[in-house]
Amino acid sequence: QPPPPRLPRARKTKQSSSREREAAMEVGFLGLGIMGKAMAANLLRHGFRVTVWNRTLSKVRDAPPIRRSIRLRFGQIDRSIHMPCSVPFCFYPIISRTCGDFCWQCDELVAMGAAVGDTPASVVAKCKYTIAMLSDPSAALSVVFDKDGVLEQIGEGKGYVDMSTVDAATSCKISEAVKQKGGAFVEAPVSGSKKPAEDGQLVILAAGDKALYDDMVPAFDVLGKKSFFLGEMGNGAKMKLVVNMIMGSMMNAFSEGLCLADKSGLSPQTLLDVLDLGAIANPMFKMKGPSMLQGSYNPAFPLKHQQKDMRLALSLGDENAVSMPVAAASNEAFKKARSLGLGDLDFSVVHEVLKGTGGSG
Amino acid sequence: QPPPPRLPRARKTKQSSSREREAAMEVGFLGLGIMGKAMAANLLRHGFRVTVWNRTLSKVRDAPPIRRSIRLRFGQIDRSIHMPCSVPFCFYPIISRTCGDFCWQCDELVAMGAAVGDTPASVVAKCKYTIAMLSDPSAALSVVFDKDGVLEQIGEGKGYVDMSTVDAATSCKISEAVKQKGGAFVEAPVSGSKKPAEDGQLVILAAGDKALYDDMVPAFDVLGKKSFFLGEMGNGAKMKLVVNMIMGSMMNAFSEGLCLADKSGLSPQTLLDVLDLGAIANPMFKMKGPSMLQGSYNPAFPLKHQQKDMRLALSLGDENAVSMPVAAASNEAFKKARSLGLGDLDFSVVHEVLKGTGGSG
Amino acid sequence: QPPPPRLPRARKTKQSSSREREAAMEVGFLGLGIMGKAMAANLLRHGFRVTVWNRTLSKVRDAPPIRRSIRLRFGQIDRSIHMPCSVPFCFYPIISRTCGDFCWQCDELVAMGAAVGDTPASVVAKCKYTIAMLSDPSAALSVVFDKDGVLEQIGEGKGYVDMSTVDAATSCKISEAVKQKGGAFVEAPVSGSKKPAEDGQLVILAAGDKALYDDMVPAFDVLGKKSFFLGEMGNGAKMKLVVNMIMGSMMNAFSEGLCLADKSGLSPQTLLDVLDLGAIANPMFKMKGPSMLQGSYNPAFPLKHQQKDMRLALSLGDENAVSMPVAAASNEAFKKARSLGLGDLDFSVVHEVLKGTGGSG
Amino acid sequence: QPPPPRLPRARKTKQSSSREREAAMEVGFLGLGIMGKAMAANLLRHGFRVTVWNRTLSKVRDAPPIRRSIRLRFGQIDRSIHMPCSVPFCFYPIISRTCGDFCWQCDELVAMGAAVGDTPASVVAKCKYTIAMLSDPSAALSVVFDKDGVLEQIGEGKGYVDMSTVDAATSCKISEAVKQKGGAFVEAPVSGSKKPAEDGQLVILAAGDKALYDDMVPAFDVLGKKSFFLGEMGNGAKMKLVVNMIMGSMMNAFSEGLCLADKSGLSPQTLLDVLDLGAIANPMFKMKGPSMLQGSYNPAFPLKHQQKDMRLALSLGDENAVSMPVAAASNEAFKKARSLGLGDLDFSVVHEVLKGTGGSG
Repeated sequence: QPPPPRLPRARKTKQSSSREREAAMEVGFLGLGIMGKAMAANLLRHGFRVTVWNRTLSKVRDAPPIRRSIRLRFGQIDRSIHMPCSVPFCFYPIISRTCGDFCWQCDELVAMGAAVGDTPASVVAKCKYTIAMLSDPSAALSVVFDKDGVLEQIGEGKGYVDMSTVDAATSCKISEAVKQKGGAFVEAPVSGSKKPAEDGQLVILAAGDKALYDDMVPAFDVLGKKSFFLGEMGNGAKMKLVVNMIMGSMMNAFSEGLCLADKSGLSPQTLLDVLDLGAIANPMFKMKGPSMLQGSYNPAFPLKHQQKDMRLALSLGDENAVSMPVAAASNEAFKKARSLGLGDLDFSVVHEVLKGTGGSG
Repeated sequence: QPPPPRLPRARKTKQSSSREREAAMEVGFLGLGIMGKAMAANLLRHGFRVTVWNRTLSKVRDAPPIRRSIRLRFGQIDRSIHMPCSVPFCFYPIISRTCGDFCWQCDELVAMGAAVGDTPASVVAKCKYTIAMLSDPSAALSVVFDKDGVLEQIGEGKGYVDMSTVDAATSCKISEAVKQKGGAFVEAPVSGSKKPAEDGQLVILAAGDKALYDDMVPAFDVLGKKSFFLGEMGNGAKMKLVVNMIMGSMMNAFSEGLCLADKSGLSPQTLLDVLDLGAIANPMFKMKGPSMLQGSYNPAFPLKHQQKDMRLALSLGDENAVSMPVAAASNEAFKKARSLGLGDLDFSVVHEVLKGTGGSG
Repeated sequence: QPPPPRLPRARKTKQSSSREREAAMEVGFLGLGIMGKAMAANLLRHGFRVTVWNRTLSKVRDAPPIRRSIRLRFGQIDRSIHMPCSVPFCFYPIISRTCGDFCWQCDELVAMGAAVGDTPASVVAKCKYTIAMLSDPSAALSVVFDKDGVLEQIGEGKGYVDMSTVDAATSCKISEAVKQKGGAFVEAPVSGSKKPAEDGQLVILAAGDKALYDDMVPAFDVLGKKSFFLGEMGNGAKMKLVVNMIMGSMMNAFSEGLCLADKSGLSPQTLLDVLDLGAIANPMFKMKGPSMLQGSYNPAFPLKHQQKDMRLALSLGDENAVSMPVAAASNEAFKKARSLGLGDLDFSVVHEVLKGTGGSG
Repeated sequence: QPPPPRLPRARKTKQSSSREREAAMEVGFLGLGIMGKAMAANLLRHGFRVTVWNRTLSKVRDAPPIRRSIRLRFGQIDRSIHMPCSVPFCFYPIISRTCGDFCWQCDELVAMGAAVGDTPASVVAKCKYTIAMLSDPSAALSVVFDKDGVLEQIGEGKGYVDMSTVDAATSCKISEAVKQKGGAFVEAPVSGSKKPAEDGQLVILAAGDKALYDDMVPAFDVLGKKSFFLGEMGNGAKMKLVVNMIMGSMMNAFSEGLCLADKSGLSPQTLLDVLDLGAIANPMFKMKGPSMLQGSYNPAFPLKHQQKDMRLALSLGDENAVSMPVAAASNEAFKKARSLGLGDLDFSVVHEVLKGTGGSG
């Protein structure tokens, strides 16, 4: 009987010895979504000096002063309040001075000691290293190439690390622009979602400038349980595709098994128990299995993104003439789910397609 | 970050309290192959009184006295020795009295306190409960239906438990014959191979007579980390097929990922490291990955057996109109491996087919 | 619009020269379903002397005299009529003497000159050669092995030709029984349904006794546009499976193309026109395409039978270690259709599954 | 042996009546590869006035005067000859005046009455309608956008028809550029290879400017047996992808059947005969079957192009959420063939992969 897979906190042994360096380290952080905020907080907790910026801040500042009004009625009070902030239910512009430097999205971070930058350019100007964690390729490009963007201040001696999940073309475009200005660039997409981000348990798949990667190791040690340097630009994104492809095929295999058990008169719940005791037990089966049996598909990883990754992995295989029939069959099942309008639910909703009930929704 | 899957020692809490019952329990054990010997030894170690029988014993006894001779030469000594035993390299008939009651296959067990039965019938006559662990359906049938077989002595008040992995038809045939004689029958195929058998860490998938299952719980507690009672006859075999089907598809998904990494300029070894840290980490990837990268395929679970299980699982799906495209694609990959003459190697050798080198062997 | 590809009448050149032999030839014909009746009629038209038998005849004769009554009311007339015949709406027992020798199912044939046999045994007793065309394996076995069956009269100098579509095991069982009695046996499943049967345009896939096959060539020339002798018993059934497997995969490929055209903004009807002009134009696309676009699936070949043939072909591939990923994927699509309750419709209904509307029915 | 299905000459009924119009029609023709030359010759034979241009002509003219020398030795003669032409074995520059206006690639056409243009621009300047038939997207773009290209002379009242097989992006880029200059554009990829091109039996899949299409009908009537106007730009390319996708899946289905027959003890040759008589008989099986059985794969349609079309069709399906598992499985088989280095052979060479012998080459 093999031992359960150990999930080591790699590199954490060096933590205490590198505290000094960490303490001295100043990083910029662009993008304060679910992932970014958790990551920036982690850095602050570990003694990094962090200057944050979020797109919303600039939007607000650039917006016309009065955006809309809310009518408040408490007992006698009945007044209309101007809401200058575009962030829903953001009251900071009212109770505080300006939205631009003290917003609900960064107030917690400010309370933890973060400074707030006006623009990506000003953050890069202030910090030797700047990390970005943005929602999609267009945001990743905008933060670099737009007015007041990273490119305006990046240069010799400065490093830019994009941890967003973007396609290879986007990464390369940013990389080349940064390098042309004399800066260093590392792509570092992560494996893991909200919870691992909060716990500093991400897996970091870095590639690009090795020297910059080495400089970033103290930060990566805080953000993730393990970081890998994978060589040339694009390898981070590729590695993520490979992992997600395997995951997508496994989800299909799992779902087929659950359906087969159910239709054959076996208890799918017992199948979960049996699987959990054997050689193919894994956290995904354990986490997703019960919710799949309940038909609950809150999107931790939306099916349309999983299918996009399958497609990109198959394309990568096509370029390199790798035949992958199981991934191809899995991709078609995910596409079927998309065609039934299930793309925004969790990727485990492919289970409904296999059960044959997907068409009724 | 999810915790690693726990691999609990289910039911072991009752162990001390049930020791007394165990101590009193007498079981027969038919079949002393790799699995059977380890299981019988476990029972002996936990205080069960065990009477063993192996097919070889009878074969030897019934064989003509002189089977072949071996010529031994040590220094001056040069003599030819008659080898009456059909077990390769079995010297017991020479150095000891007779092969029939003291053979290399059962001597260790005898040393641990086992009694040796002459025939399956005599074992059943002596013991209230008899467990069988045989290599294949034909052995399972032969032990029951042949002369001196289980059927001759099974009857009211006696239970027969077949833990071999056999098809549903074989199980049912045995079940009906045993029940017709008034005996009770449980099929109880196991998940897990040599190591879990030695460590008492099998997963036992039992079905059939519930009362007999309940009586066997003390023995199952020793043999496995967990036993399941799955209801009507055939469900044990079916559950095993479902699990093995998922495993087979996962192996293909894994292998496709390793190939894609390799051909795309990523290190497959790094992929193993990345996988091992994420949500799809599992003991199989951890155990098989390194040997697959080395092209080493010692058969822990021969590909032809894996493919047979895929085929049977697909047949089960066919009966119940369950569409399973990923399992079907995986099955074709295993068949491709068989067609290339790789059926006797470990099922992970499907990796060679995907790598495209399988044809050269 | 191009004409459909012509399907020539092979071997018909020998027709005139073999008329004499044909004229003298007497054959028995068991089974007067849609196919059998058309085939027996063809033989009669070409001068064969044919003695027919149908299972219904015997059933009727053996039935209790009064089966049910029908109440007829025309104006003044109001009387209850005893219906002794189990064939729905068969009035022959009333207007004629007995059902047994002049039934609606064989009256046309009798009018064309057919004699009617009482039992399979009596047909075989009378005729040197007897052809059977039955609905399924159980009917094929019953006609041979039951009381008054073929076996009672088959023997030296007599030949039995089963043109039903049955599995290999059924064919072999019949073959061995017939041969044991000294008779000769040929299996001769056909490709083609009602229309080709009426037009003498079947394709005959014969195997077994070569001398009997040679004797039957005049009859096969009448029944089909071409007959093949494929060697040892079972090869006829196998060849049919291979053809149907290719057909099933083609139907899926076709349906995928129609869906892709439709969803991509192309006219599926235009796709049919384009296909019909190119290198992959074939009668099936031409015949099934328009009805598939209308969502009309009258069962010429029920999906459940197509899927059964795919399954058997895949099993045959499994035995011989032939990897067939496209057939496997097609089989899963047919299974999906079955799981949606579409098994009794035409096999082209797999199109509804691909369109994603199958689940709503 | 039945004759091949007839492929009628659609629309040819209007031929005589439209001869007058045809006689007056002047067209330019860019690209004189295998396809282009045959098409231009057809137009000439039917009375069109054609001005041709081929990339080689320009290349030669622009090349330095002496490219290489060949040493000829016949008996006493031993001399070195300067070969100014880059076309291999082109002797025209030696035996005739200049290569630029009388080359082996266009001499036959000149003999049939063709004029020769210096550049794409000069052809367009001279002719109201210009047809292009080029090898790939880069050639298609180069002829339009390079110096002396189509764009320099296209404009109001002129039409440009690209019959090359290119991707949608290329077509759209050309279309927009032509329209911006005031010209009209039609994409018109064809179905059919060398033989149909020579026989005027192509199937033309046109889309874009309807008025230009209508003007071109006389030319399309000569070049093809049927032309379709499919609506908006891109639909021509899409229709071709759909047809080729079905063809690719059929080829796999066919090959699987041949392998299954072979390994199951049936004659693959007989399978060809049986198929040819049934509902799925088609010209491709008839043409490719015999050469596949001989292992002969002269590239009429190279596998790498077929696989590219499968990939693009699957991408189109992905965009529109159409699940196509059979096409996906077929694509993986073609990719497997590519990975074995078979991409330049005919697409029917996928048969070798299924046979399992592909790896040994």
